Amino acid sequence: MEEKSSSKTRGKAIQCKAAVCRKPGERLVIEEITVSPPMAGEVRIKIICTSLCHSDITFWKMKDPPALFPRIFGHEAVGVVESVGEGVDEVTEGDIVIPTLISDCGECADCRSKKSNLCSKLPFNISPWMPRYESSRFTDLNGEVLYHFISVSSFSEYTVVDICNLTKIDPAIPPNRACLLSCGVSTGFGAAWRTAEVEEGSTVAIIGLGSIGLAVAEGARLCGAARIIGVDTNPNKFELGKKFGVTDFVNAGDCGNKSVSQVLNEMTGGGADYCFECVGSASLVHEAYACCRKGWGKTIVVGVDKPGSKLSLSSFEVLHSGKKLMGSLFGGLKPKTDIPILLERYKNKELQLDEFVTHEVQFEDINKAFDLLIEGECLRCVIWMGK
Amino acid sequence: MEEKSSSKTRGKAIQCKAAVCRKPGERLVIEEITVSPPMAGEVRIKIICTSLCHSDITFWKMKDPPALFPRIFGHEAVGVVESVGEGVDEVTEGDIVIPTLISDCGECADCRSKKSNLCSKLPFNISPWMPRYESSRFTDLNGEVLYHFISVSSFSEYTVVDICNLTKIDPAIPPNRACLLSCGVSTGFGAAWRTAEVEEGSTVAIIGLGSIGLAVAEGARLCGAARIIGVDTNPNKFELGKKFGVTDFVNAGDCGNKSVSQVLNEMTGGGADYCFECVGSASLVHEAYACCRKGWGKTIVVGVDKPGSKLSLSSFEVLHSGKKLMGSLFGGLKPKTDIPILLERYKNKELQLDEFVTHEVQFEDINKAFDLLIEGECLRCVIWMGK
Repeated sequence: MEEKSSSKTRGKAIQCKAAVCRKPGERLVIEEITVSPPMAGEVRIKIICTSLCHSDITFWKMKDPPALFPRIFGHEAVGVVESVGEGVDEVTEGDIVIPTLISDCGECADCRSKKSNLCSKLPFNISPWMPRYESSRFTDLNGEVLYHFISVSSFSEYTVVDICNLTKIDPAIPPNRACLLSCGVSTGFGAAWRTAEVEEGSTVAIIGLGSIGLAVAEGARLCGAARIIGVDTNPNKFELGKKFGVTDFVNAGDCGNKSVSQVLNEMTGGGADYCFECVGSASLVHEAYACCRKGWGKTIVVGVDKPGSKLSLSSFEVLHSGKKLMGSLFGGLKPKTDIPILLERYKNKELQLDEFVTHEVQFEDINKAFDLLIEGECLRCVIWMGK
Repeated sequence: MEEKSSSKTRGKAIQCKAAVCRKPGERLVIEEITVSPPMAGEVRIKIICTSLCHSDITFWKMKDPPALFPRIFGHEAVGVVESVGEGVDEVTEGDIVIPTLISDCGECADCRSKKSNLCSKLPFNISPWMPRYESSRFTDLNGEVLYHFISVSSFSEYTVVDICNLTKIDPAIPPNRACLLSCGVSTGFGAAWRTAEVEEGSTVAIIGLGSIGLAVAEGARLCGAARIIGVDTNPNKFELGKKFGVTDFVNAGDCGNKSVSQVLNEMTGGGADYCFECVGSASLVHEAYACCRKGWGKTIVVGVDKPGSKLSLSSFEVLHSGKKLMGSLFGGLKPKTDIPILLERYKNKELQLDEFVTHEVQFEDINKAFDLLIEGECLRCVIWMGK
């Protein structure tokens, strides 16, 4: 790709490469596409690097609505501002920014409240359009519209993102670390820190030690949890988990006649103070609930299951157990406030990000990132856009 | 009944009258029974008055386990200590006490924690025995064992209660007011105050305006809620509710094509900050959840459904809504700490108790109390034991 300076491209359509998914589950094809200039309130960014998250795979495989194709996936990234739309003064050309699937307008009742991170001006959804307008900024060379994905669509050299979905960051942070805070690490870390408010000395259980689960462990570790119990069917995850503070391990595939919650209740003398469901299975939420200590245990749903799936709890148990159930979208973090805090903790060598990056590939090898994540040995594969 | 002074009865079995339920749903029969002396850690009390709560009716009608007969129901009462078992020094003969279905040992991890009211030394259950021993203190005149009910069994002139389930109170409080704090009013009031921690200026929705729902309103009113929306199928409940701070009403039987949650979301511009399910229907919990504001809404399950009933929520909604689900047993109150606080607020004319007592009957008319509560126009019917 030839280098474009903002002065040349500002206000004009940009032709660049994007990895387009035309049918569910089919390998992405790198195509030339056209990216329109940002509309009012929007920003066009050049992606520096992006990483692959399980939600990309969930929607890539999905055949039924809200699935929609052709689409440009990718939502965990870092980029540089190429140009800004009308009314945008929060960032300027050349700024380094992190796009996020949730917005942070700073003005609505939710953004003004300490209790919510779910902006009501541009609420999170899986629509195929830009959040402020029912339209796309992407077309292919035949003029066909390409759909956006959760307000980011980072599998493209250039993308357009609403200013409410962008956080400006310190340019000194390496991009292949910063991009992790665009979704996965923020989601897990925040679930422990902001949503559960893990207390010092407490016991934490984490069902599913993928990147999100390990980021929960990292969050719980930095909150001062005394015991962090990882639960996974892959025993190799224990060694990996230790790097992020996991102190104990339950092999969910090898509990004998007992359920995971029975084993965990015995290990802890009555259950964990917090239990995080990070697999994305509604049916595991009941098990996570059963892993929590009566009286005050919190169950936090972090994993994303298919739309339409139901979770079921015993009414008697909900009433009589004193346990709480809560979900955590983007870890309960407000992007523009909390991402800079996390990056500062990374700079201070408190928060570990390096260990999450197990693989790095060039953009043309993006399908390899899918293979690696599906195979299960990869935490995060960073995809570099430039050379 | 002839008056018995403690010195005559201490250490001996007492023969007295009790309203015994021998078969599910059958009218209670006032019989002569024998009440054994209290064992170590227990207290025998003479009931002054008791009131009827819906949970009595739920278990009175129940045919399958944990239902068990013959049984002495009743768990909302006030009494005077007749004698104490070995090792009891917290109360003495003549003290006025409130029995509670939950215990408060003061020593276990839960009782020592601010976060729990679920004593783990003598955990709440619906066993037919005294909590500390697998035995009953009641026999009929043929020597047959009569079962206890949730550690209280107040439909008897004398009953035995564990010291962990008794709170000593100020004897100046009228007994037909104090008894309401033994279960119903405490449960509702505490659900708003301790479990939900209703904030000043907030919006509260209450599904079901029976005594518990109205006690939630009273709790929310004293927490400073700006708007308290009652939901019931009986429109007469609105006038009644106004006495307890209900400001708005939704007739659940007259919402046209809309669901209760749709009406409530429109009324509040996005849902209530807190929604309390006080009917005791697992299927209504989802509706209560839908009545809550995204971002921070709390759904509190207060009503008691049949054991075995399941509540179902959308996994996607739990993850993406930022809402919390919690149950509230005995309103999250610690009996020995919190009941005296509530009684003090009654003495200070802040907390209303008088309005809850709509009927009073003598013990021999106890079945009338059942009829009145089932007919639905009664909030609390106080049953006086003596003349």
